[in-house]
This record gives sequence, C-alpha cells and structure tokens, in this order.
Amino acid sequence: MSHPQTTFRQTTFTAPSLLLTRRLTVSRTTVHAQLAQLRANGQYDCFKLGWHPIYDDRSRWPAPLHLFWDSDVAKWIEGACYFLVDEYDVEVDAAVRELVAMIRGAQHEDGYLNVHFSVVEPGKRWTNVRDMHEMYNAGHLIEAALAHRQYYRNDLLMDPIEKYISHIHRRFGPGKDQVRAYPGHPEIELALLRCYSATDNTEAYDLARFFLEERGNPTGQDGKHYYDWEMERRGEPRWKRPNSWPMDRSYWYCQAHVPILEQESVEGHAVRAMYLLTAAADLLNISQGSSSSTGDVVPVRPVTAASDWLAALRRLWSNMVDKKMYLTGGVGAVAQWEGFGIDYFLPQGPDEGGCYAETCASVGVMMLAERLLHADPELNGRYADVMELCLYNNVMTAMSADGKAFTYENQLASCEAARSEREGWFVCACCPPNVTRLFGSLGGYLWDYGGTSGVGEEGEKEAFVNVHLYTSAEVKFPVGEAEVTFSQKSNWPWEGNILFQLKGAETLDQTIRLHIPAWATQHGHVLTPTPPAGTATLEKGGYLRLDPSYTASNPVFSLDIGGASFAPRYIAPHPYTNQRTLTLARGPIVYCVEDADHPREENHFKDVGIKRGTVVEEEWRVDEKSGEGYFALKTMGWERSPEVLARGEDGVERELVFVPFYFRSNRGGKGQMRVGLRDDGR
Amino acid sequence: MSHPQTTFRQTTFTAPSLLLTRRLTVSRTTVHAQLAQLRANGQYDCFKLGWHPIYDDRSRWPAPLHLFWDSDVAKWIEGACYFLVDEYDVEVDAAVRELVAMIRGAQHEDGYLNVHFSVVEPGKRWTNVRDMHEMYNAGHLIEAALAHRQYYRNDLLMDPIEKYISHIHRRFGPGKDQVRAYPGHPEIELALLRCYSATDNTEAYDLARFFLEERGNPTGQDGKHYYDWEMERRGEPRWKRPNSWPMDRSYWYCQAHVPILEQESVEGHAVRAMYLLTAAADLLNISQGSSSSTGDVVPVRPVTAASDWLAALRRLWSNMVDKKMYLTGGVGAVAQWEGFGIDYFLPQGPDEGGCYAETCASVGVMMLAERLLHADPELNGRYADVMELCLYNNVMTAMSADGKAFTYENQLASCEAARSEREGWFVCACCPPNVTRLFGSLGGYLWDYGGTSGVGEEGEKEAFVNVHLYTSAEVKFPVGEAEVTFSQKSNWPWEGNILFQLKGAETLDQTIRLHIPAWATQHGHVLTPTPPAGTATLEKGGYLRLDPSYTASNPVFSLDIGGASFAPRYIAPHPYTNQRTLTLARGPIVYCVEDADHPREENHFKDVGIKRGTVVEEEWRVDEKSGEGYFALKTMGWERSPEVLARGEDGVERELVFVPFYFRSNRGGKGQMRVGLRDDGR
Repeated sequence: MSHPQTTFRQTTFTAPSLLLTRRLTVSRTTVHAQLAQLRANGQYDCFKLGWHPIYDDRSRWPAPLHLFWDSDVAKWIEGACYFLVDEYDVEVDAAVRELVAMIRGAQHEDGYLNVHFSVVEPGKRWTNVRDMHEMYNAGHLIEAALAHRQYYRNDLLMDPIEKYISHIHRRFGPGKDQVRAYPGHPEIELALLRCYSATDNTEAYDLARFFLEERGNPTGQDGKHYYDWEMERRGEPRWKRPNSWPMDRSYWYCQAHVPILEQESVEGHAVRAMYLLTAAADLLNISQGSSSSTGDVVPVRPVTAASDWLAALRRLWSNMVDKKMYLTGGVGAVAQWEGFGIDYFLPQGPDEGGCYAETCASVGVMMLAERLLHADPELNGRYADVMELCLYNNVMTAMSADGKAFTYENQLASCEAARSEREGWFVCACCPPNVTRLFGSLGGYLWDYGGTSGVGEEGEKEAFVNVHLYTSAEVKFPVGEAEVTFSQKSNWPWEGNILFQLKGAETLDQTIRLHIPAWATQHGHVLTPTPPAGTATLEKGGYLRLDPSYTASNPVFSLDIGGASFAPRYIAPHPYTNQRTLTLARGPIVYCVEDADHPREENHFKDVGIKRGTVVEEEWRVDEKSGEGYFALKTMGWERSPEVLARGEDGVERELVFVPFYFRSNRGGKGQMRVGLRDDGR
Repeated sequence: MSHPQTTFRQTTFTAPSLLLTRRLTVSRTTVHAQLAQLRANGQYDCFKLGWHPIYDDRSRWPAPLHLFWDSDVAKWIEGACYFLVDEYDVEVDAAVRELVAMIRGAQHEDGYLNVHFSVVEPGKRWTNVRDMHEMYNAGHLIEAALAHRQYYRNDLLMDPIEKYISHIHRRFGPGKDQVRAYPGHPEIELALLRCYSATDNTEAYDLARFFLEERGNPTGQDGKHYYDWEMERRGEPRWKRPNSWPMDRSYWYCQAHVPILEQESVEGHAVRAMYLLTAAADLLNISQGSSSSTGDVVPVRPVTAASDWLAALRRLWSNMVDKKMYLTGGVGAVAQWEGFGIDYFLPQGPDEGGCYAETCASVGVMMLAERLLHADPELNGRYADVMELCLYNNVMTAMSADGKAFTYENQLASCEAARSEREGWFVCACCPPNVTRLFGSLGGYLWDYGGTSGVGEEGEKEAFVNVHLYTSAEVKFPVGEAEVTFSQKSNWPWEGNILFQLKGAETLDQTIRLHIPAWATQHGHVLTPTPPAGTATLEKGGYLRLDPSYTASNPVFSLDIGGASFAPRYIAPHPYTNQRTLTLARGPIVYCVEDADHPREENHFKDVGIKRGTVVEEEWRVDEKSGEGYFALKTMGWERSPEVLARGEDGVERELVFVPFYFRSNRGGKGQMRVGLRDDGR
C-alpha cells in the first residue's frame, strides 16, 4: 500500500496545463506567502515554547485560537517538502531546518510534544482528547515527518515523532494500564497508517487500528462511552459542550455516536469524517495487502471483518456523494458544525439556509476517493469522477490565481453577509496549507500502477497503469529490472484528446485502464489506432481496459473523449434538494456567473433564470492579470423579480457570461456570484 | 381596550358553518377529552402539591417534564369557562370548581403560587426566570382567573391571582429593592394587560410595562444583561444552556438579545415572539386609549414613544409575514428552537431541512393580528388576511374532526420520520388547550365594534362595526341606551355571498367596514342594494366602507365576493424560498394531497408535479365518518422520478385529488401528505 504523498515523486508534470500552472504558483508564491503568514502571526516560533499574547485569549472555548498552531507548522513543512522535490529553494529549506530544530527542542523527556499543553495548560495533557486536538496536531506532525524524511533522507524529524508515537501508544489502547480513548478530531489515524506503510512501525499500525475499532464504543471505558467517562473525570456536566454541538452528547459531530461499522450515514464535521474514512480505507487496504508501486506489506493482524469495512465505506461514501454533495464537489451544508446536514439539504448559500463546503473537506474527499480506488475490488469510476470534480471545482476555487488568497467556505451563491471573496489567512488556518499539500502531492492522484516481474506462481511479467485524471505528465516506476515510463499529454480540462506513450515495458504484459468520466460516457470515445475486437473493453466500473496485446502493438496511442463531451452542458442538483436551479458545465469544470462580467448586478443573481436548451456560445479568454486562459460561456437568461414571476410574465432577456467556478473572484468586483440560477424551463 | 376573550360573549354563531361545527366539537368532545387527559396524566391533582413520579425525572434540563403543568390546568380552566357560556355542563363546572379550590389551597402565605417550586425545588423560586417558566405559568393562571371571573361572576380564582400579581410586583421592577428581571417565556405580559383592562389593576399594568420596556436591556441589572447576572448568581458557566440554544448567550431565542424597540427582525422561539408582540400591541392600544365596545380606559402612564412601538410592531410583523411565514399561516421553520429561521427559509418538512409551524404559534399570530387591527391607525386588511389564513389552515389542521387528536408541529409535507398524524396529548401539552381557548373565544375575532351616544364634543351618535371574518353569526352591543344587533349569514368558507342585517341602530350613524380578502380583490365584489355613488368606498387598508347614509337606507344588504374569487387557484411560495412548488387554494382554504385519496403513493408525493393553468374540477364531498362537507379539487399531475426528470422526459400523467389542509389525516391511511407539489410549469 502506497499513498499519493509518497508516489507523487515518480510523476512529473511535463507540459503547460491548468494543474501545472497551479503547482508552479503554489511552489513559487504560496509556499513563501504562507511562510510569511506563519512568521507574522506567531506560529513559526511556537515550538520555542515562549509565551505569545494570543495564549491569553480564552474567548473561544474549548478550542483556543492557537490550538492548531502545531498543525499549521506541520502542514507547511509537509507541503514545503513536497515542493522542494520540484525545485530547490534556499529560503524554504532553511525554514524547514529551523522549524525541525525547534520541534525537536520542544519535546518532553517522555516523548510528549504539544505547544498548548507545554506552555498554556501544562498538567492538563490528555484530559480532553475530545476537544483539545492533541492527537490531531500529532497526526500532522507525523505527516510532516514522513514528508521530511522522504525529501531529506534523514530522521531528524522522524526520530522525535516516532518517540511521540511510542508515548501515545503506551498511554492509549486496550491494555490494563491504558485508557480506551480516541481523538475527537480524527487525523492521526491516517497519519499513523501512512507511517506504518512507509516505515513498518507496528506501534503506529496498532494504535491507528485501535482508534478505528474503538471509536463510538458505547461502553468502552469502565462501561461508559469514553467521552462521557472523560467528561466526568474533568468534573464537567453534560451541557458543557462546544458551540458547534447543537445538543449535549452530540457525538455524531465527531463520528463517535456509534462504532464506524454501524454508521448508516455520513454525519457531523465533514473534515473529521473524511480524515476518519480515509484512515478506515487505509486500514482495509493494508489488510487486503492491496498492491501498488512499492509492493506489498503484510500487516501484523489483518482486519477480521474486511467485508464489513468495505460495506461501511461504500455505504457512507454513497450517502455522501448521492445525497450530501454539492455539484461543485463541496460537502457540508451546515455552518454550525462545519458539516453534513440531512439528506438532500444543499442550499446554495448562507442566506438560503446554509452551505459550508469547506476547502479541507474537499481535499479530504479527494484523499478518500483515492484510497477507495485501491480498496474497492471493482475499480470504480465513481471515485475518480468525484476526485476530479472536487479537484477542479471546490478545491481549486479555494485559492486565488496569484496563490496568495484562500477560502475556508465555498458557498455556491454569495450574499451581502458572505461575498465571493478570498482571504490571506484565517484564525483557524487549516485550509490554506491543505491546498499546498494537495498540490504538492498531486502527481500521486493522477494514476496508480505497479507490476510483477515473474516471481509469482506462474511467473507472469506484468505491469498495469490505471489512469484516473488527465493532464500532461509522465510517470516512471520500476517493475523488477525494468523501468516503465508512461506518459499522457493533453489540453485537459479544455479538450478531450489525450496522447499516451509507453516505454521500457517491452518485456512485460501491460494492461492500461483509462477512466471515462461519467459526464462523457454517453457520447462515446475513440481510441487510435483502432483496437482490434476484444482488445479494448469498457468495464462496468467506468474504465476502458486496454489489453496487453493492444499496448504491445501500440506503444503510442490516443484517446479522444472530446467533441460532444466537451460541449457546454446544463447541469442541475437532484430534484429532492428542492433547489430547482440550473448551471453550466464544460468537461469537468462547473461554471458560475459573477458581477465582474455583469457590473450592474445588485441582487447576487437571485432574480436570474436560464432555460435548459438555450444556445450557449464558447469564448476562449486569456485573463490579463494572471495570463490564464479559460473558456467563458455565454447564453441568454431572464431577469424576473418575484413580482414578475408572481404575475407569470416573461421578464427581461439578459446576456449572461459564465466563468469557471474555480476562477471566480480573481478580477475585482463586489463579490456577487452564483452557480445555480433559477431553472426557468422544464 | 377590550379583547376577544372578553367580547366573544356578545357574539353568537347562528347557523351551521365550519366554525360552528368546530366550536360544537370542542365544546362537546374536546373539553371533556382534555379533562380526561389532565386526570390521567396527573396535572389535574398537581395543585394538591403531593409528589408525582414524574417529578423524579430530571432528564429534560432545564425544563423538567412537569414544568408547564400549572399552565396546562390554567388553560383548560380558561377554555372551559368560555364554553360554559355556550352550554352549561355539570362535569365541566364541577371540575373547574374543584381545580379552583386546589389552586387556592396551593398558594403560599406571601402570595407565591407554583407547583414545581412548592414541591420539587422549594427554595429555588425566582432563581431562573430565564428557563423555569414561573411567570409563564403565572400568566396562564391570570388568564384562567379572568375567564373564571367573567363566567362565574365571583373572585374565587381572581383573589389569589391578584395576590400573586402583588407578590410578583413587589419583587420585580426598577426599584431599589427589586430586581430587573423579565420572563424567559413571555406570556404574563399579555395576561397582565388583559387583567388591567378588565379590572383596572394598576400593579398588573406597571408590571407588564416594566417587563416590556426592560426586556433585552444589555446593562439592566448591576450593569449586566439580567440573564447574565442571574446565571452568575446561580454559579453557572455560559455554556450551561438549554439544548434549544445553538450557542451560549443565544438570547434571541427568547427575544431578549436587544430591547424590543431595537429588534430589526422577528427571531427565536415563535410562540414566545407572538405572545410578546401581542402584549406590546396591547401596551400600545392601552396607551392610545383605542376604543372598542367596552369603552376607553386611560392608563396610568401613557407610553412615551408610541410611534416607536408601532414602528417596531409593523417591522416585526412584516418581517414575519413577508419572509418567515408558510402559505398555510404556519411560522417557525426550525425545530431546534421551535422558531424562526433566516429570511425565506421555509422548507416544507423535517426531511427537507425543517418546518415546525407550531399550533400555538399560529394561535399567537391570530392574537397578534387581532391586536394590530386595533393598534394600527390605518385599519389594515393584511392583519385580517393573515388572521383568516392561520385560522382556516395552520390552526384548524391542529385538531382532528372528532376533536380528540391534536398536533404540535404542522409540517407541509410528511416523511417517514414525521407522518401526517395527530396525537391525543403531548408531554408538553401547550397546543391542545390553546386550540380550545381559541375556539372558545372565536366570536371575539370576527369583528370589532363600538360607538358613542352623544357625550362627545359635537354630540355625535355613532356606531361602527368592522367585519374581519365571515361566517354566520350575530353580535349585540350597547351604544348608550341603544342595543345594536348586527348579523352576518353566509356559507363561508365555501361561498362568498354574505347577507348582513342591522337592527336597533336607527338613532345612530352607522359605519360598517367589510374586509375584502387579498385573494379576492382582483375579481371585484358586488354590494346589494347597489350603493349610490360615494356611499361605499374600498379603502386603502382593504376594507369596504359603507357610509351611514347607505346603512340607514339599507338595514339589510349583501356582499358578494364570490364567483371568480372562489374558483380554485394555484398558489406558490415566494421564489426566494427556493421551493418552486405549487398548490391549490380555494377562498381562504389551502389544499394538500394525501394518501387517503392516493393509496398507492409511497414517496410522500415527492415525485409529483403540477402545472399552473391545468384545469381543476371541484367536487362537493361529505365525509362519511365526520359528516363534514368540503370541496375536494381534482386535477392532473405528472409523476416523474429524479431519473425521469434528469432525462427531461414527461413522466406519467396522474389524477390528483386535493383536500383542505385542515382536513388531512381524518380518513385513515398511512400518513403521506404534501401541500406544495413540484411546479412543473412556468
């Protein structure tokens, strides 16, 4: 089992593309801008364990403003190490080294490592694992250590982190002298399982597995739910609860209301849910020994009920994707708990009942989708579809084209109280560095691949590449003695013709699977050279499987899913959302209207309707400021006030310009934007 | 200033009508059924101050299950006294007498009178006026005493209640030895002002006025918000808060976030808001000496900023009616706080994001509307429109045709978790007796009236009747020596022809104003005999004003607003609700579909659409079980699953039967119902 955070190094982005543009921006601008924010706000020095004025602010109970600082630093280190691979940068390198030294210096003798409980509340460590994010911070430190070790090829950060893992492993677990806790904010589980995969650290595996299996146990600790037990130990009454909880004992907020295997629907804080399920998929993948480029690692104890874990993951994934996901890939309709509402409750904006669609949550969806591509025996195009949807829409809209401004929430419609804007930083700064990490490891999401070089029973010499996302990139991976090189070249997401080339695999049977996006399936595809009968099959899972006989004869081939598939299309949310709106999409890109193109708009496009079937014109634009090109879409809409609608009149025809949702708020204006416009047709 | 609860005695329902049918059912069945519930559940004996097992249940913090028992008893007494006027009943009379004796026996020496703080938590009285409903209970006791005194013409209940008012008056107020509290659940204010109007009790007036003026004062008590101060005195932290509060210090829940005059929008718990604003309107009415049948009472201190109070009432009313009211007259979209959501957030049911529409809240809307008809200088048909809308829809749907089952919430669409059903009783039993009280005093809502008999400056002899609701009824009221009798006769709400007759007013100038409902205005109306020019004017406020010269010549006349106005019509929520649904209405009645007429329906009509303009047929039905007649409406709809909709196909045509929303769930079935169906047209 390997992870995108490991495998991305084998992939190179080879030609100009939207993804490469963003990666370069993050590498050259964002990593530095975020470092500057860390220095300016105090995070940079927090591991020095000095006092910072913000530590006096106790207004945000239970989680004070600085509670996530450890993780802010850790995520930056992780992202920075990913980009150092691409391009060495002396300032970034120096900062990573200095931060690592500070982290090493902040560790207690017994391995404990946390800023808040070293400086602000010493003596209270591990007394509130439900709210106080110690393990969440630890998880990000583990991920930072993995990235650091991978780039620097030393254990300067991994050493203290493994010591910290041992500390946690001693304290928590099923043993007599341990307590049966698990973190309120899952994250450490996926970090521990990545750590195990990368280092064979079995303490990490055991700990993660305990956390996953124990979570939600109603009688885990002395016959009580751990969070009840812990709360009583703190002497707190039930009603002492975070403001994000609508009721006392709202344990569904952190997915601890029942054990994971018994959860029927995806609930609560969306980021926590995604991190937790990503770890659950990792656990399953490790247990199944699911192979990838780095080969198989056998776990110490395989999961006993693998089919139950797969069933739970499929159930929760489907509930999310079918009933709780915006058509931009955003998840989480409810601001109060930054998470999921009831099925089909997907209002477009805060003044319409909700819409959170947190950036981190969509990064989490991508992580989960990538894991499920490995975990789910029938390779399932739905995971790739959603991964692409999130990437090009909810995730990409979270950063400005210049790489200096970010979002936390990604509403589909602005209002006066929540304009379409981005910010340089946030008090709770999880989202910006999460975007950095994601773009850093993006190469690992494009495809998975592997092979055997004749050591198996039958002595097959095989290799495979499953291509999930299209762009221009090349991957190199070893199969036995051979080094396979596979490349794709395209103008994705604007055009659907992709040229593939396979090298160094002459001695292997090569099976290639190419993802056919769901939005493209109805229009067919063309493979060139034309495959002989039976050598190219569209599998039920949504992948076009190319037989070794085809690739052997055609090391260079192309797939065209363009033409009709890249024509602008009208899309709408599920009717049970009661939204009855319509918007435009083109390829994987979801569009919106914004006031930069309609300067006279004053009502956030609430009164504008469009009709399915109205002609849409495409216009290739190159943005002056950023130099970025994109297709704008133009169509006619109807401006109809509530009064005009009530009278059943036609309203005023109006020209509308749609731009990619990800590109919104890059061209000034007053922050008026809407994805779904009133559906005026049938 | 008089109130419907006083004036209803002057009105008699004279001929069969839907309203009379309901009143008879309540009188003959409901009053007895509710008495049986009080006896069976323990409320009946609670003023004996013995222990009841339910007092041990402390699971519902802060308000234990029995906290409202005082008010349950009081509301039943109030309703029972209203119906005793109509028809003497020996069992009801005996129960009222026994309950009054028990209440008298429960009073403490110092006047205090509350079951919970006498039995369960003696010593904690008045320590939590925010949550513990002492004043709410006191308010209902005051209303019971007023009704009791009116029917029995003795002070057996009023005496202890006035003693209790004195007790409260001593404790709360602006004085040195007083505290500046006001109740978390408003109710006592309107009760106190009714008490003042009926008995000239100036302590009652002063206390109510203090509560209204002090509410939401950020620095009322020792420089603090009273609820903060009180909470600190109890030694409670901010986070100790009811589960209905989404955040700590959610004082908007009980309309105490800012002073009433500064409130920009109607917020929080809907019943509390309606009771509070009703009292505010009473305060204004008393201050303005607004006259009615019982003549004028001059208050001790007129309100200084009457125009500010009127502006606040208009502002909050408009916010509610324009942006926060369902088309059934229901208010309150959010179950958690049983109250208002953001503007235009009006999902139809719990599985679509919300819908509470509590019965008591609509009763409160009717009370507020009735008060505003007096308070607002330009007599405003909007108040009468909304009063009628609530009565015939959200209020009337709250009781079964047999008078034995009730609702608390009145969703517009059922779902598996919340079927369209009614219950015999509730743990928190506010709604059923509120319906009883409302129907008991209903005569007082039909009209207001009054006159002067020549004692004024000019010595005019005048009388007036403003007719707000149509049915078949007669009112008698004195003007000086004369006794005026005014009657109306109609088949409302099914037909729009109303015959009026005026008697005993020959010596007076009589001005009659007849409400033209908003849904009828566009089709015109016919007055017979035809009025000479200038003698019948449709005023801006929505009332047809008949000049004394017209009524002098025509003591019998008729108004016809029928024909086109009573044709079935398509109605839809405001487009900003994002509901895009359509339903049928006929006259004041809003319709729904239910599975009793569509037994094969399995999805709560989620997949059914209708188109504006499709022909609708009327069918007069007489229900077998209840014997009630009503118009059913029949039209064609389209069954289209989400998949069919996505493919843009037509779906399957389907015959639909609509029945009045108030009549739903009277004919068995499995509880599937929907008001707004998908709008399939433009």
